[in-house]
Amino acid sequence: MKTVGIVGVGLIGGSFGLALRKAGFAGTILGVSSPRSLDQARERGAIDRGAPLEETARTSDLLFLSQPISGILETLRKLDALVRPETLVTDAGSTKKAIVAEAERSLRRCAFLGGHPMAGKELRGAAAADADLFRGRPWILTSTPDHPVAEEFRSWIALFGAREIILDPAQHDRLVAWSSHLPQLASTALASLLHDRAREAANVAGPGLIDSTRLAMSSYDLWRDILETNQSEIAGVLDAYIEKLRSLRTDFEAEFNKGGEFARSLRR
Amino acid sequence: MKTVGIVGVGLIGGSFGLALRKAGFAGTILGVSSPRSLDQARERGAIDRGAPLEETARTSDLLFLSQPISGILETLRKLDALVRPETLVTDAGSTKKAIVAEAERSLRRCAFLGGHPMAGKELRGAAAADADLFRGRPWILTSTPDHPVAEEFRSWIALFGAREIILDPAQHDRLVAWSSHLPQLASTALASLLHDRAREAANVAGPGLIDSTRLAMSSYDLWRDILETNQSEIAGVLDAYIEKLRSLRTDFEAEFNKGGEFARSLRR
Repeated sequence: MKTVGIVGVGLIGGSFGLALRKAGFAGTILGVSSPRSLDQARERGAIDRGAPLEETARTSDLLFLSQPISGILETLRKLDALVRPETLVTDAGSTKKAIVAEAERSLRRCAFLGGHPMAGKELRGAAAADADLFRGRPWILTSTPDHPVAEEFRSWIALFGAREIILDPAQHDRLVAWSSHLPQLASTALASLLHDRAREAANVAGPGLIDSTRLAMSSYDLWRDILETNQSEIAGVLDAYIEKLRSLRTDFEAEFNKGGEFARSLRR
Repeated sequence: MKTVGIVGVGLIGGSFGLALRKAGFAGTILGVSSPRSLDQARERGAIDRGAPLEETARTSDLLFLSQPISGILETLRKLDALVRPETLVTDAGSTKKAIVAEAERSLRRCAFLGGHPMAGKELRGAAAADADLFRGRPWILTSTPDHPVAEEFRSWIALFGAREIILDPAQHDRLVAWSSHLPQLASTALASLLHDRAREAANVAGPGLIDSTRLAMSSYDLWRDILETNQSEIAGVLDAYIEKLRSLRTDFEAEFNKGGEFARSLRR
């Protein structure tokens, strides 16, 4: 693995470049992004230089797609004509069924490995990139292909300090609907409801309301594609949450006990 | 105001004693609590000594009831026979309608001022008491009685750095149902649902799920009385939340925008 191409050099793409460098990767890192993102990424040392998608696809041994989901889908549709057969394409999209299906449809000339590094922070863009962003965090892969670049890629992930977890695309999308999409929507619904019905509650807010509305500050730009590509799982978890809220009153004590047990298990 | 009696010397009662001392109160502070709590409170300097309720009620100019709600209700029922007419009784209960109604019913011989300092932390007990617990936090009072001890009490609160807010008991209970009880139940429901349906989500949890389940670690012991004394408001906000979750899908973008606006307003 001599040349890595990062397509979409924002927080995740930039952090991937920095993490590779910190872990000792000595090859070339090319970036495909807006001129401003490329400038920021180069300044931070996350890429060596910007390049067009055509050149990057043709010269990279590993292509890391870290755009928003809709951008990844679009890149996948263009990529088959551009890549070498020995290249591995992987991605960092937050849902996996739509992306893996598109890769199976469009990308016939080289291998694809779906990925989802579960890391992030409130700031966006390559300027906020962080070589340690993936440390201790799960990095989900949708399979373990028998492919030389895939094996090397997985050893870099291990060097980043990330925890590799193998989940097929449907398992992944189901699990993140529970662990990520439902908490987001629960927070958005709470904050939007308070906006509609009780704005004056801001005057008597405690730390609990601050915690409960932190996710509500997430940008819809980041969520549009996620909500669109995981609709049925999201509908299911929302229905289950509504049902739980309906039945909560019948035994508050049992619900507090179960909730406390899960919350503590998260922190172990 | 020469003698202050604190009935229930846990985190809030102990912090009240410490805050009085830090603000320069030079009189006597008596505590009514379990022997263990009294020992801790005395060690921390939050009280001068423990005393029976009878002696404390008879000698205090200000009585601060900082027990759980059911304990406050019970103390109010006993207090009328014990107090001097010039004493002011106030409290720190998390709901106000039931407590103010009980005080109106039972406490005829001296004045009562309902209160709710909106402060807390994860630790409990006088050992965790903190002279600065109330700094910058709202301290809700249910009225502003024309009473010499009430005026002095309010000036101590101001010295603690708390923000006095006047709300009648019904307004208070409605507002905290939105700002505190709904966030608690939303978090408990989320964590309990994950416990029932997706425990393996703990393996792929991000910081969002951590934030969203922090309140779920609250002890039911602290919530039993709150849920019981604010039932109708809580039923109303739960229904409104369920309705919001049901309609969320019709316009995710608008809900994200409104939620983001409220969440940011909280942080200004």
